[in-house]
Amino acid sequence: MARWEPHARQRLADAALELFAERGYEETTVLDIARRAGLAKSTFFRHFQDKRGVLFAEDAPAGPLVAAIAAAPAQAGPLDAVEYGLDALGRDVFTADRRPFTLRRRAVIEAHPDLREREALKEAGLTAAMGRAIAGRGVPGLAARVTAELGGLALKAAYERWSDPAGTEDFGDIARQTLDEIRSAVAEVRG
Amino acid sequence: MARWEPHARQRLADAALELFAERGYEETTVLDIARRAGLAKSTFFRHFQDKRGVLFAEDAPAGPLVAAIAAAPAQAGPLDAVEYGLDALGRDVFTADRRPFTLRRRAVIEAHPDLREREALKEAGLTAAMGRAIAGRGVPGLAARVTAELGGLALKAAYERWSDPAGTEDFGDIARQTLDEIRSAVAEVRG
Repeated sequence: MARWEPHARQRLADAALELFAERGYEETTVLDIARRAGLAKSTFFRHFQDKRGVLFAEDAPAGPLVAAIAAAPAQAGPLDAVEYGLDALGRDVFTADRRPFTLRRRAVIEAHPDLREREALKEAGLTAAMGRAIAGRGVPGLAARVTAELGGLALKAAYERWSDPAGTEDFGDIARQTLDEIRSAVAEVRG
Repeated sequence: MARWEPHARQRLADAALELFAERGYEETTVLDIARRAGLAKSTFFRHFQDKRGVLFAEDAPAGPLVAAIAAAPAQAGPLDAVEYGLDALGRDVFTADRRPFTLRRRAVIEAHPDLREREALKEAGLTAAMGRAIAGRGVPGLAARVTAELGGLALKAAYERWSDPAGTEDFGDIARQTLDEIRSAVAEVRG
């Protein structure tokens, strides 16, 4: 085994998603993943805690999202600040080169109830983080929570659209359009 | 042990919450709960799967919520239909006699990260059920999801207010007021 392991993390992640698709998530072991990547099992554990970590530890969208919401111009309204946040995700996290990985990741998650639960918790965590960032801009209690729920929905819906195999648009463009549609929908449902 | 066990389920639930408060959730066993209630361990397992079941299996708000949304008058708008749903919860699930149990339940959940995760999943499930019920009324995709997110927030915020120790109002009244505040907040945050 070479001691120099270029792109080990990405090779392990790609190997894992290949195997999850080929033989199923449950049936794939960490040893299988390391072998497919041509790396040692110990190398896997330097990069991930376990095989679920391949799907959930990779990106940390909360950081750039919260930072961009906080840094949005003072005159930006609550949902406008969310738009700055989603735009930052398109630049820093959901970049074009990450799209193939994301596509395969979603397919694995959709197929497993326990992974869908984990994904739902991650989404709830992102919504909560958005709520705190919006409240930090001086938006009062319930309005900050409304903004976070709508922002969380925008993020989820934009992520689904962006990871559609037929799509080609930037995440930022998709997110902006999704937020506009949510603004219109909100006017309809108020009743 | 008497074979006739009146109100066994409620006695077990009350005993469990007393013990969770006194000695902590982790430190309480099913045997402790059964003993405190003056019942056999086997009786506990006829009513609950495990001690977590005392906190999460008790009520199934999704049923009455979804039924009332589906049965709302045809001319009711999406958020108005949610109002019918929350009103049904006040009549059938979050009744005045359930308030003391709910207060203690919330305190236990707040104190444990894994129980908070379980609660977040339950909330996500209720939001999804609301979304399907609203879509079943012919509300198109994104508008149904927006309604569900706002309805889910209304349910969560109303539940928090209702289970505040200082509160005395009916759940239905609190929910109606919360939904009104959310309607106003939505107008503010659209930006």
